[in-house]
Amino acid sequence: MARRKKVDVIGVIEESAQGVHDSIMRRRKPKMRMPVRSLANVIYKPRTGYFVLKGQNKERTLTVNTVKTFAQTLKMMALSKELVAGEDMATKREAYYISKNWGEAAFKEQPESDTVMEDIEAMFGLIREQLRFVPEEKGGEVAGRLVVVDRDSRGKKLEIDCTKFGSGSYSIPIECEHLEFHSRAKFILAIETAGMFQRLHKYNYWDKTNCILVSLGGVPTRACRRFVRRLSDQLKLPVYAFVDGDPYGYFNIYRTFKVGSGNAAHLNEYFCVPQARFLGVTPQDVLDYKLPTHPLKAVDIKRAKDALKNDPFVKHHKEWQKAIHQLLKSGVRVEQQAFAKHGLDYVVKTYLPEKLRKKDKFLP
Amino acid sequence: MARRKKVDVIGVIEESAQGVHDSIMRRRKPKMRMPVRSLANVIYKPRTGYFVLKGQNKERTLTVNTVKTFAQTLKMMALSKELVAGEDMATKREAYYISKNWGEAAFKEQPESDTVMEDIEAMFGLIREQLRFVPEEKGGEVAGRLVVVDRDSRGKKLEIDCTKFGSGSYSIPIECEHLEFHSRAKFILAIETAGMFQRLHKYNYWDKTNCILVSLGGVPTRACRRFVRRLSDQLKLPVYAFVDGDPYGYFNIYRTFKVGSGNAAHLNEYFCVPQARFLGVTPQDVLDYKLPTHPLKAVDIKRAKDALKNDPFVKHHKEWQKAIHQLLKSGVRVEQQAFAKHGLDYVVKTYLPEKLRKKDKFLP
Repeated sequence: MARRKKVDVIGVIEESAQGVHDSIMRRRKPKMRMPVRSLANVIYKPRTGYFVLKGQNKERTLTVNTVKTFAQTLKMMALSKELVAGEDMATKREAYYISKNWGEAAFKEQPESDTVMEDIEAMFGLIREQLRFVPEEKGGEVAGRLVVVDRDSRGKKLEIDCTKFGSGSYSIPIECEHLEFHSRAKFILAIETAGMFQRLHKYNYWDKTNCILVSLGGVPTRACRRFVRRLSDQLKLPVYAFVDGDPYGYFNIYRTFKVGSGNAAHLNEYFCVPQARFLGVTPQDVLDYKLPTHPLKAVDIKRAKDALKNDPFVKHHKEWQKAIHQLLKSGVRVEQQAFAKHGLDYVVKTYLPEKLRKKDKFLP
Repeated sequence: MARRKKVDVIGVIEESAQGVHDSIMRRRKPKMRMPVRSLANVIYKPRTGYFVLKGQNKERTLTVNTVKTFAQTLKMMALSKELVAGEDMATKREAYYISKNWGEAAFKEQPESDTVMEDIEAMFGLIREQLRFVPEEKGGEVAGRLVVVDRDSRGKKLEIDCTKFGSGSYSIPIECEHLEFHSRAKFILAIETAGMFQRLHKYNYWDKTNCILVSLGGVPTRACRRFVRRLSDQLKLPVYAFVDGDPYGYFNIYRTFKVGSGNAAHLNEYFCVPQARFLGVTPQDVLDYKLPTHPLKAVDIKRAKDALKNDPFVKHHKEWQKAIHQLLKSGVRVEQQAFAKHGLDYVVKTYLPEKLRKKDKFLP
């Protein structure tokens, strides 16, 4: 599995800027080239394990119309160079505010600076964290049989034992490239909702089954995805996803977690968790466990139908097509907490053990 | 400051249920009485430090129209009794799903079960956590000079040192009544955004100033508020709030954090942090620090004007009225991250030290 390569980010930035400079000196219009970012420009290769770019590029040539974006891209590259050199970082929001000192190149709204940042990422094939731009939001939570190795501000090694947080838990930092791990756990359980995470934590599920619990907190953040990926790579641990049984859980959470999204395919190499398998909740579980449900909303139906038509991951896996047809036919969605109908400990005592005995039947 | 009293919750529930039973046996209509929950039914007493109920009650009498809610209330009380007896807990969502086994008394949607739960809280003057109903969402994050004392599942004492998590942090559990604290910190800094929390954590602000950093993550959860309150009570530590300079930051975050809200006044005794003071960002800071701003939105203006008219806290404090008039006159709002315009370390090197030298001028 890919480890992030040590890249001379400053070198890459300087080389690109030099190219622009040289074009101008030769009285040619400078150009920047970057991949098209959409689901139409990715393919799903199960061997690679995540969506990869098909190779369509767009070109940005310096003209009267593009001059502002062009200048902003160069200024953003300069900021990145400064952050790398100073071993500092900036959140996306901070980067936007820093631009307020760029005179006419200042961004009016943050979506503009975010887009330029993403263009630079895609152009260099680097991830934002390598450019020292870090996410605003926090990472995710961890409890269970894991020791995280980090360092304090003086460089002293710290061993953070995730079995020693009592009823609390370890909160993943916004950047986790420097972390190392020790563990003898048997698997990682990635959980959609904070409520279910707390339920399993409360019942010491990690202690009983020798596993690591990770709370995704809805759509997992970049830091959370990268954390699970590095953890799973380094310790060769299987990852099982336990999410709500609805199209949002299947695609926005699980599919993105495992193989990525079309919009950010240049990141998938680092942020996807191809080793993830789908534990539940499946449309079949609704029947097998007589779960209380809610009707599918219009947006659920649209999301499911779109996936059948356009999603390279779903188109590749017959098992998923079958599951989605079953979902659409049933007309209902289900939540993780629905197991509570049979008693609060039912999920721990019955559902999870039964599912884990049939791991080989997990959806891919 | 109030510590949560040890209440015989089972006794309280049984007594109330007995009353209903006795009324029925005497062929009288059973009644339940609970306080009216709105901003109109609270007063602000600076001595007490938070909004308290004025005492308006509503009565629910068993009739043909109320029979379902009445039955649901009794079933919910029975569930609570069971949870207390079994030392278990249920999230709001789980409680809703458990009702699916109540036959005709099953809740159709979760807002219905939430309302019944809140009615029971208010009726008994207890908080949901005492009834063993815990929030769905997680608590908040902590870094800095604090040792949290908790226990593992076998009852063994754990000392959780919040200076030892490297770039990560301690995630507050959804319930924190059992925690104890050791610290020699000088103050608690409560921060609205995860981005600013990470900035201060990255620059080891807690180490340099001997403090405890708490990330509120927007409107703080109940667990986060209770955590800060207990921490501040037990260690007699001042709490400074550092939030965005807009009406949402002033009222929805700071005001609620400090004195509570009208909707849940019966909880304020436990969840408010009356010792909190407002560090910033103030409308005056925008001028003093030449910060980049955004225009106030219609909803900001409405929120500010409503507060001047109806909010007992604002009506009590001339300083806040002055600040809000200044805000409305300026027509702009400001974010915590805006300090980045002057450099990423400006907030740590200039803004916070300057403000802390004038603590006595903090808004109440």
